[in-house]
Parts: sequence; structure tokens; C-alpha cells
Amino acid sequence: MSTANRPALTNDLFLRALLRQKVDRTPVWMMRQAGRYLPEYRATREKAGSFLKLCMNPELACEVTLQPLARYPLDAAILFSDILTIPHALGLGLQFETGEGPKIERPVRSLADVTKLGVPDPHTELKYVIDAVSLIRRELKGRVPLIGFAGSPWTVGTYAVEGGSSREFSKIKTMMYNEPATLRALLQLLADSTVVYLNAQIAAGAQAVMIFDTWGGVLTPAQYREFSLHYMQYIVDGLTREAEGRRVPVILFTKGAGDRLALMAQTGCDALGVDWTTDLAEARRLVSDTVALQGNLDPNCLYAAPERIREEVARVLASYGQGHGHVFNLGHGIHPAVPPEHAGAMIAAVHELSPQYHV
Amino acid sequence: MSTANRPALTNDLFLRALLRQKVDRTPVWMMRQAGRYLPEYRATREKAGSFLKLCMNPELACEVTLQPLARYPLDAAILFSDILTIPHALGLGLQFETGEGPKIERPVRSLADVTKLGVPDPHTELKYVIDAVSLIRRELKGRVPLIGFAGSPWTVGTYAVEGGSSREFSKIKTMMYNEPATLRALLQLLADSTVVYLNAQIAAGAQAVMIFDTWGGVLTPAQYREFSLHYMQYIVDGLTREAEGRRVPVILFTKGAGDRLALMAQTGCDALGVDWTTDLAEARRLVSDTVALQGNLDPNCLYAAPERIREEVARVLASYGQGHGHVFNLGHGIHPAVPPEHAGAMIAAVHELSPQYHV
Repeated sequence: MSTANRPALTNDLFLRALLRQKVDRTPVWMMRQAGRYLPEYRATREKAGSFLKLCMNPELACEVTLQPLARYPLDAAILFSDILTIPHALGLGLQFETGEGPKIERPVRSLADVTKLGVPDPHTELKYVIDAVSLIRRELKGRVPLIGFAGSPWTVGTYAVEGGSSREFSKIKTMMYNEPATLRALLQLLADSTVVYLNAQIAAGAQAVMIFDTWGGVLTPAQYREFSLHYMQYIVDGLTREAEGRRVPVILFTKGAGDRLALMAQTGCDALGVDWTTDLAEARRLVSDTVALQGNLDPNCLYAAPERIREEVARVLASYGQGHGHVFNLGHGIHPAVPPEHAGAMIAAVHELSPQYHV
Repeated sequence: MSTANRPALTNDLFLRALLRQKVDRTPVWMMRQAGRYLPEYRATREKAGSFLKLCMNPELACEVTLQPLARYPLDAAILFSDILTIPHALGLGLQFETGEGPKIERPVRSLADVTKLGVPDPHTELKYVIDAVSLIRRELKGRVPLIGFAGSPWTVGTYAVEGGSSREFSKIKTMMYNEPATLRALLQLLADSTVVYLNAQIAAGAQAVMIFDTWGGVLTPAQYREFSLHYMQYIVDGLTREAEGRRVPVILFTKGAGDRLALMAQTGCDALGVDWTTDLAEARRLVSDTVALQGNLDPNCLYAAPERIREEVARVLASYGQGHGHVFNLGHGIHPAVPPEHAGAMIAAVHELSPQYHV
């Protein structure tokens, strides 16, 4: 693939912080920064016809990926896509019904259901994602790095087995208890698919990758090690870690990880996402400064008045304290009803208040 | 109040374990043990007409409280009621719509909304609960102790402010950030109401009380201390701790507490409920054996085959290890779709496997 479309980065703060290299302020981006809270996003989604059509259209996916960068001085772009592209490519029948969340028409319930599935080819079934990565990378013109991503096998597996969102995860947990071999076969297939998928994103120009383990926190500690962390470890081991002469950092994020951050740091990843329920000071203690940390403002804080947002940004920065291995972010995705100017207040506060931690 | 209806306990394992006194096996009960998974419960609820009518009818509440004791060798009964009785008594307009969860018709959104509320009198607005406690206590005939309960102010407050169940808790968190004085006024009113309410349950015959903080885990550590733990501490400080010549143990339960268990143990409570995401060995380490622990089988485990349930019961018992301060329970309420014989398999396994930890 041509690298003519890949000019040198003018802002590499994000990549440097992920590798705990010296930076003069804390870089900042937001999970779901291209999303429903932005009127320009809603307009593009309207044009696309649906969320899934927007994901599958590289030009429009590129357009919404770049929208928040036009509004805010962000230090990274993240591919606009969804963690359910792999089940979609596996032919499980993905639908997004408005206000209902994702639905999987043909959920996986038996070993026979798993064995008829094969690792999707990123250059055919998932070509729309890889094309979007290439296009976004070209359109970014080296302004900031581009993050690629995927869901963790456990998290993607919950949708594949439950048939959609879940509160209690009863179907996948029943499978775990009664047919662990079936669950392991599914998670291994998802892990193999994710390695190929993320490596294709990296080859197409993703400069860092993040693995979202949204539901790892619903497992017992032993189940977490066996059914979530194990497969994330497998992915970390299989990823291309250098491209264009530069390390490609890997970020793992388990929502509700708590003290599991210590185990996660041992996978060989470069950074961990931290939700708002763990103080960054405690998270830093748990990982003994072996990896960078990304987070962790309570997403609900963005409903507060701008001066309160600034105070809370100050608390998060102080909680991490002195040092270069911090990427500022929310502790989870930005909520759809947040006023865009409040996101701007958060980002401005990080620019203003963080240099004191990098002296 | 007459104590003629309060014969001596023939099984006090539960109370002894909560006080870390010697027991010869681990006592066991289940959160939501009187509930939808039992056909006899569904029949009584049908007879009552609705969930709320069942809660408000002392005779029928007594009937469903006793149903699981007729099926299983449980070591405690828990009052059949709901954590939203206080908002109901406050006149906020509680409704339970089938399949929808609770709705609060007149949610609290301002300081004016709070200041017009007063502490409910447990002997008038909440008389149906206190009458149920007296009646259940009489009908138990000293077989096992009766647990009274209430929601934590923070948890009850989420329903009062959000107007029902929530996933993101945006309204109460916006209030926390922008109008903390309003939220504090509401939580103090709920805390005052809860002290009076639980003390009335104790006077009517409750032999232990539990405070359910279902949603404390969605707060940052600092918010948890200020907006949830602080008010539970206030309640613990205000409770009657002895009745009928015996200590009345207090159990605190924050779902998703993680390492906050250490702080909770310092409130002066007797025991902590632990959900399934923290190993009991780790929980015991966090609280340095200063309080008893109650938990923590993954509720989804009861979908597994009985022999798998037995294995997982063995793991939970081994995780607590040697010692008397363990009450076996699920890590959260039993799910409505669990086959009743699976609950029986769990209870039988505790009876069979726990004596070895009490030698």
C-alpha cells in the first residue's frame, strides 16, 4: 500500500504519551467523539440512512470521523465504526433498531453454530472498514494520529450469544457453565478474527489500536482471566507492533476493571483505559507505572456547568499527577445529550491545566 | 409490643455468623428468595393483583416471605418488601408497570421539591410494612431469624430523581455536579427516614437489617464517600443495635463495591454483602476480618447443571476459607428464570460442603 498518503505527524502527543515518552501537555480525545451529541454527525447519519449504512460507507465514515476535529483541538482521531462489524461479517445478521440497540438475528447457541463460522477476510467482508481507515488517514493529512479498534472477544461474544444487548448475560453465562468448550471455540474464533482485522487496520494506516472490553466487568475474577483477558492477551501477542518506522501502541479497556488493571498491564499492552470508578492515582499504583493510563472523567460530568467541568478536569489531572503517561479521556463514551460546548470546555481545560504536570 | 409472639430461635446460625461467632456450618439464604422464580410466589402475586398490592398486604407479604422456607432449609427469612416503600410513603407516586420496572410519577428535581417532603411515620404511611414484620415474626415461630431491610439513600435517591430505573444516572449526577445542596438535602431526608423506618422494623421484630446500595458502584470513589457511604454511615450510627437481649447485626451491600469494601467495613456495620466480581479471599483481605462477609455466587450460576452449581459453591466456600464469619448467598438477587430445584442444589451443597471450614 502506498504511503504517499501518509504525511509525517504534526501532533504526536497522543502516541508519545501512550509510550510514556516526554510530552509538554496531556493529550486528549473522547470515546465516541464522533457521535450523536454532534448535530453535524446526526445530519450525516440522516444522509446515510442508518447507523449501519453510515458504518459501511467509507466516505461518510471518514466525514464523521473528522467532524469533532473540526470543532475541537483533539489529539487523536478514532475510526468511526462499531464493535459488531465482526459478527456482521460472520453473517450473524446484525440490525440496529432505533432506540433499541443492536440485534443479532442468528445468535450462536451451540458448537455446531460456531463450527460453521470462519475468520472473515478483512479485504472482502470487512473491506468497508479498511477502506475507511485508508481514506481517513489520507484526509487527516498528518494532523493527529488515527486510532483503530475492535471489541474484545468476550464483549463481542456477549452480543453474538445473547442476540443483542443484555443486562444479566444469562445465555452466555449458561454456556460458560454448561458448555465451556462451545464458548471457548467462539471466543477463539473471535480472537483470530480480531487479530487479522486489527492488523489490516494497522496496515491501512491505524497508528494505535484499542480493544474495548465493555462487559469484562460482569465476570468473576477467575472467569475474567479465563474468558476475557486470555483472549485479549492472544490478540496483543498477534498484533503488528510497528508500522511506518514507529511503534503502534495497543490500549486495552475493560469497563469496571477495578483491581484487574494490574493483570491487564501484564499482557504486553502499552496503555490501559480506566473508567471513572477507579481513581487514576490508584490505577497508577496498581500498574506500577508499567503502562500509560487513559481516562477517566465521569461522562455525566459533561452535563455540569463549564466551570464545574473545569474543576473536575483539574481533579482527574491531579489524580494522575506528575508524569507523561496520561492520555485524558472520559471514563466511557460521551453521552448523546451532552451539549457540544461542554465537551469543548473539557478539552480547553485539559489544554490549560495539564502543562504543570509535565515540567 | 408483646414478645409473646417471639419464641426463642431454634436456628441462630445466621445471626452468629454475622457476628463472627462459632458456627458448625455456613448459614445460607438468597437475595430475592421470595420471588418470581417460585410458582407459589407467582400465584400469590396474582391473587394480590400487583406487585405493589402484594407489598402492601401484610398477610400476603407474610405468605410469600415464608414460601422459600417451606421448600428449602434456609437459615434466614427476609421481609418481602421493596426498597421504594419510602419514596412511595413520601408521596412521589410509585408505580410498577409490568416488564418496565418502577416509575416515580413526581420525581424530585429541585430544592423546593425536597423541602416539601417530610420523614414518613412508619406507623401510619408505612404501617403495612411494620405489620408485615410483626406477622412474619409470629409465623416464623422462631425457626430462623427475620431480616429487615431498606435501600441506601443514594440508591433510593436515583429512583426519586431519575423517575425510575436508569442506565446512565444523568439526572441525579447533573444535580450532584450543579446543585449538590439539593442532592444532599434529599439524601439527608432519605437517611433520616431510613433510620426511623429500620428502627421500627427492629422494634416490630426484625433480628438483623440489611441496607441495599444497588447503585453505589456507579459513583467515582470520591462521590461514593460523599454521596453514598456518608449516608449509610449516618444510618448505621442511628440504628437500634440491640433488641430482645441480642445484638441486631447490620449488613451493608454496595453492588460493584470492589476495594470500597475496606471503607464500608469502617462504618461500624457487622457484615458486608459482596457481589460476585470480588473474590471473598480478596474481600476478606480488604476488611482484615473486622466484619463478616455475605455472598457471593454469580446469580447466573444457577442456570448451570446441579453438579456444576455444586462445584461453584465449593469454590465460593474455599475462597472464604476457614473461619466463622461467612454467610453464603448469591452475589445479587436470584433471577426470575432460575429453576427452583437449582436453588435447592445450591443450598444442599452449602449444607454438605461447608462444615469442613468450621472445624
